[in-house]
Amino acid sequence: MTAARHDVLGIGNAIVDVLARTEDDFLVRHAMRKGAMTLIDEARATSIYAAMGPAVEISGGSAANTIVGCASFGGRAAFVGKVRDDGLGRVFAHDIRAAGVAFDTPLAADGASTGRCYVLVSPDGERTMNTYLGAAQDLHPRDIDSDAIAGAAITYLEGYLWDPKHAKDAFLKAASVAHEAKRLVALTLSDAFCVDRWRDEFLDLVRSGTVDLLFANEAELHSLYQTADFDTALAALRREARLAVVTRSEKGCVVASRDEVLAVPACPVDQVVDTTGAGDLFAAGFLFGLAQGAGHERAARLGALAAAEVIGHLGARPQTSLKALAQERGLAA
Amino acid sequence: MTAARHDVLGIGNAIVDVLARTEDDFLVRHAMRKGAMTLIDEARATSIYAAMGPAVEISGGSAANTIVGCASFGGRAAFVGKVRDDGLGRVFAHDIRAAGVAFDTPLAADGASTGRCYVLVSPDGERTMNTYLGAAQDLHPRDIDSDAIAGAAITYLEGYLWDPKHAKDAFLKAASVAHEAKRLVALTLSDAFCVDRWRDEFLDLVRSGTVDLLFANEAELHSLYQTADFDTALAALRREARLAVVTRSEKGCVVASRDEVLAVPACPVDQVVDTTGAGDLFAAGFLFGLAQGAGHERAARLGALAAAEVIGHLGARPQTSLKALAQERGLAA
Repeated sequence: MTAARHDVLGIGNAIVDVLARTEDDFLVRHAMRKGAMTLIDEARATSIYAAMGPAVEISGGSAANTIVGCASFGGRAAFVGKVRDDGLGRVFAHDIRAAGVAFDTPLAADGASTGRCYVLVSPDGERTMNTYLGAAQDLHPRDIDSDAIAGAAITYLEGYLWDPKHAKDAFLKAASVAHEAKRLVALTLSDAFCVDRWRDEFLDLVRSGTVDLLFANEAELHSLYQTADFDTALAALRREARLAVVTRSEKGCVVASRDEVLAVPACPVDQVVDTTGAGDLFAAGFLFGLAQGAGHERAARLGALAAAEVIGHLGARPQTSLKALAQERGLAA
Repeated sequence: MTAARHDVLGIGNAIVDVLARTEDDFLVRHAMRKGAMTLIDEARATSIYAAMGPAVEISGGSAANTIVGCASFGGRAAFVGKVRDDGLGRVFAHDIRAAGVAFDTPLAADGASTGRCYVLVSPDGERTMNTYLGAAQDLHPRDIDSDAIAGAAITYLEGYLWDPKHAKDAFLKAASVAHEAKRLVALTLSDAFCVDRWRDEFLDLVRSGTVDLLFANEAELHSLYQTADFDTALAALRREARLAVVTRSEKGCVVASRDEVLAVPACPVDQVVDTTGAGDLFAAGFLFGLAQGAGHERAARLGALAAAEVIGHLGARPQTSLKALAQERGLAA
């Protein structure tokens, strides 16, 4: 194993967020599940967009947000994901590169337009997401550069990759290359309904050791083990996962392995403006910490710090330097 | 004169803002004039965008922001401006309609892409703007619907319209139709450097009575009369303009006519985040007030209220209902 070129390489659906504030009755009227990510087709995308209020376009995508967070901590970060060479695709490519992330996936010259997530932010800060995958559908195994994967200390994958038809194969190729190179593979379960769609395959990934590190929030964990009891789910997780982190919103997180269960508190937040990206940024801090050789507790504190920053403003990417924040709190050199 | 269909109809360059936070040394390195709006060509747009940090896309355009502000106060508002039928053009059209503004200018099927303004926000909240006009260059007199102009109590025009080659004729057509219908014509001087480019023509508009109401900030007023002395400039303005409002940032504003000079204070702001749109939103409140039959003082207070709202967050359009804010302050029923 040679020295890593990147600390973290993420693979995910490349998406531009279209964010608007909303009242909860809009969600009810349009039959949306509050807090969930729902996949939509182009026709539904058009009708939701026509009905929703004035919006702001910000580059998003769960794993992409995480990778931008890693870069904001000062980590060497890379991202793989598919956009089209159209207006929003160029916005996505600009933003991720401008954040200091290596992004070399070729933009598609034709096919579906760049993926969009219509994010409706409720007065309580909760976000309800409607995703039109668009060009992200076209991520293929050929987009996975084996040298890049082998050169990353951690390859980070999102559960959402199970939705587009070829991305799953890209995912498995990357995991296999990473393990051959003796690197770590991490997975986020992404969303409770995504777990519902792909439960058996996600359990296989954990049990087979395809995934070394699992990120889940409480709803995703409960969905994975089909139980409403946290302790039951956590016990099952500890039996099966090498290392897992369960995020619990304002209750903080639990780092779980066979030998240990470590609870780390959340960072206080003045005002929850928009929870979009909280989980993504938690993962950023934890992954950056691990790649730097931090213990689980410091890694979790870095995660909590990044999550607190991102829920204090609209949008799922940090607006301040996470490196500077971590230094202020004595969590980084 | 029949009852007005719209309170305010705005005509302006239709632009999508691409906003990024920046340090002042970036402005120096790229030879930008801090606080100014500079017109750029496509090549410069490409090179600035490549150099600037991660950004957020938000519909903008000076007069468009004003008109959205009028609608947020509960006014009946319409906008005329040119975008192309591309990704950002559809974003512009969606956002302005979703704000409750009538927008019927056809999107261009070909030609230059939708205009963009690269807005660099300094740590002190000051914004430096680089505008690629794009499709906004193609606003023609044929885009001016005489019935719509005749049906608006106030037609509001931006000085920036003097930059694209045909928009000036569209401007003059609109002013003439409005006056034939016994409606008011208002103009904002837009920017001190814009005044520098078009000083004589702007003075003619004021002196000839083509414009009934003039909005200017201090820098624009000083540029118009080529003096650094505020009182000298104000005296010249009072001799020439029927009614004028000079905005003076934290010093509030002065409403000036031959008979009266009325000073109205600014609204206190907790934290100046981004001054983009402060002048635009001041105009929104003042125009809405006038259209509602308010006196100059209440109209100016509505303007100050809207300006304070918009500088408290990133972006040049209100994020809260200005109608509700005005009701809270006892400025509207």
